[in-house]
Amino acid sequence: MRKIIIGVMGVGEKATSNDLENAYKLGKIIAQEGWVLLTGGRKAGVMDAASQGAKSAGGLTMGILPGKDDNGISEAVDIAIFTDMGNARNNINVLSSDVIIACGMGAGTASEIALALKSAKKVILLSEDEESKIFFKKLSPDNIHIVENVEAAISTVRLIVS
Amino acid sequence: MRKIIIGVMGVGEKATSNDLENAYKLGKIIAQEGWVLLTGGRKAGVMDAASQGAKSAGGLTMGILPGKDDNGISEAVDIAIFTDMGNARNNINVLSSDVIIACGMGAGTASEIALALKSAKKVILLSEDEESKIFFKKLSPDNIHIVENVEAAISTVRLIVS
Amino acid sequence: MRKIIIGVMGVGEKATSNDLENAYKLGKIIAQEGWVLLTGGRKAGVMDAASQGAKSAGGLTMGILPGKDDNGISEAVDIAIFTDMGNARNNINVLSSDVIIACGMGAGTASEIALALKSAKKVILLSEDEESKIFFKKLSPDNIHIVENVEAAISTVRLIVS
Amino acid sequence: MRKIIIGVMGVGEKATSNDLENAYKLGKIIAQEGWVLLTGGRKAGVMDAASQGAKSAGGLTMGILPGKDDNGISEAVDIAIFTDMGNARNNINVLSSDVIIACGMGAGTASEIALALKSAKKVILLSEDEESKIFFKKLSPDNIHIVENVEAAISTVRLIVS
Repeated sequence: MRKIIIGVMGVGEKATSNDLENAYKLGKIIAQEGWVLLTGGRKAGVMDAASQGAKSAGGLTMGILPGKDDNGISEAVDIAIFTDMGNARNNINVLSSDVIIACGMGAGTASEIALALKSAKKVILLSEDEESKIFFKKLSPDNIHIVENVEAAISTVRLIVS
Repeated sequence: MRKIIIGVMGVGEKATSNDLENAYKLGKIIAQEGWVLLTGGRKAGVMDAASQGAKSAGGLTMGILPGKDDNGISEAVDIAIFTDMGNARNNINVLSSDVIIACGMGAGTASEIALALKSAKKVILLSEDEESKIFFKKLSPDNIHIVENVEAAISTVRLIVS
Repeated sequence: MRKIIIGVMGVGEKATSNDLENAYKLGKIIAQEGWVLLTGGRKAGVMDAASQGAKSAGGLTMGILPGKDDNGISEAVDIAIFTDMGNARNNINVLSSDVIIACGMGAGTASEIALALKSAKKVILLSEDEESKIFFKKLSPDNIHIVENVEAAISTVRLIVS
Repeated sequence: MRKIIIGVMGVGEKATSNDLENAYKLGKIIAQEGWVLLTGGRKAGVMDAASQGAKSAGGLTMGILPGKDDNGISEAVDIAIFTDMGNARNNINVLSSDVIIACGMGAGTASEIALALKSAKKVILLSEDEESKIFFKKLSPDNIHIVENVEAAISTVRLIVS
C-alpha cells in the first residue's frame, strides 16, 4: 500500500534558527506519525534539519536532489533521488508530496508553493514572513493553510490525509 | 551572434483584459526592438497575446510548451520547443530569457518569478496585484523591478540588456 | 545511512513472458538482499512485475512515474515519485540507481541504458535481443555487463555494490 | 506559420573527422532549405560543426543546452535554450525536431535516437557504426531510415516534411 509522503520545503543556507527548529520538529513528528518525509535533500537549512528530525524518530527520509550525484547531500537522507535538474526538481517535490509544508520563506520555497498551487496541491505555510502569507492566501484561498506553529501544521496535515 | 531573448510570462485562461492588452503591446515593442519573444507558447492569455503582438510587428516568437506536441499551441508561435515537462518547463522559460517580464499574476506566473529570482535573473513586474509587488520586492529587492505600464517595462529592459 | 537502490528497467505493455518472469525474480531477490527496488512505476510489464516480486519478499519499492498523478501506477509501488516529465524521467531513473539492470529490450529501455552509459553508470543487460548486446557492449565495454540469467545479474550487482 | 525544425544529434568531444564533415554539410544544406537547425548547442563535435555549417549559409540555429548559462556554448548558436537538465534535455531535443538526423554514434546520441523512437519520431541514421544500424533498425523498422551520405539524409528529410 502506498506510503503517505509529506514534503517539507524551506530555505537552505539562509534559514533562520527559528526555521531550523521548526523543521527539526516537523521531521520528528512526521516520522512518529509513520509518514515518509520528502525534502530537497541538500545538507543545508530546512532540508537537512527536517531530515535530521525524522531520523531522530526512526523515520524514512527521501531527498529529491538538484544534482546528479551525492555531492552536498544531507547525511540524514535514506533514499536519494538524483534529478540533475536544478530548480526544476521543485516541481517533482510538490507533485510527489501528499501535502506540502513550507517552513520559512525564500525564492526557492516561493517557487515550490506556487508550483504546488498551480497543480492544486494543498500547502501549509509556517513562516514569519507576513507578506508571503497575504500574497499566497490571496493567490489560492482554498489550498493555502496558514498556521502559527508546528503542532497546527501537523494537525492540518492529519485532516488532509485522513 | 546570440539573439537577445525577452520572456513574457503571465496568466493563461484567466488573464484579465488589461493583462491581454499589456501583453500584446509588450510583444509588439519587443519585436520592434529586434528582440526574440519567449513565452509559454499556449494558445491562451498572456502567452498568446504577446505572441500575436510580436507577429503584428514581424518579430520572431518562441514558445516553450508544457506538452509533447502541438496540441493547444498558439498560432503565433514561430518556433516551438516541446518539453513534455508540464510546469517544470517554467524553469527553462526563465533561464532562457535575458530579462523576464511578468504581466499579471497567477500561480504559474508566481512560480516563474520565484524561479527567476532563485537564479538571480532580472524580473520586471507589471501587475495590478499589489500584494505580489510587496511580496516579491521584499523577497529580492535587487532583482525585481516594479513598473506601472508597458513603456516603463520596455525602458527597464533596455537598461538591463544594453 | 543511505540505502542501496537497484533500478530494474524494461519494456512496459509489450514485455515478453520471459521478461516478466525474470523481472519478478529480480525484484524478489533485490528485496531479499535488503536493497530498494526502483522502477518506472507503471502498472505494466517489467516495472510492475519487478515491483510485485519485491513486494512478495517484503521489500521497499519506488516508482519514478512519467505522469503527475497516480493514474496507471503499479499497485506494488510503495513510494511514488511523480515527475510529470514523460520519458525525460528515464534520466532520473538511472542517476538514482546504484546499478541498473535492463531486463528485455525496447526503445524506452534502450534510452535508459544509453543515458546510464552517458553518465558512466554500470548497466547489467539481461535480454534475448542479441543485437542490443553487441551494440551496447561496443558502445561502452567497461560499463556494460552482459548476463544470461537472473542469478548472474544479482551476482554482478553484488560485486558492484560491495 | 510554424518553422520546420531539423535536429542534428551527434557526438561531442569524441566526434570523428568524418562526423564533423558530415555535420557541417548537414547544417549548411538545412539552412539552404530554409529549415531551422536544432542541436544540443555545445561548442563541441557534431553540435558545433552543424551550427557552423548552418551559419555559413545564413541559417537560423538553435541550441538546447544541458546547462543553465552560456558556459561552453557554441558561438554559432543564435538562439540558446538553457534547460539546466543535463542529459534529460535530450528528450526536448527530439520532441522539438520535426525530423532527427543522428550523425555518428555515442551514448548520448544513442539515447536521443531511442527517446525519439519511443515517441514515434522519424530518425535518419548516418553513421559508420554498423552495429547501431542493425540494432536500431530492428528496434523500430518503420521509424529508422538508414542513409549512407549527407545527400541521402537531406532527401529523406524532404520526403518526411513535405
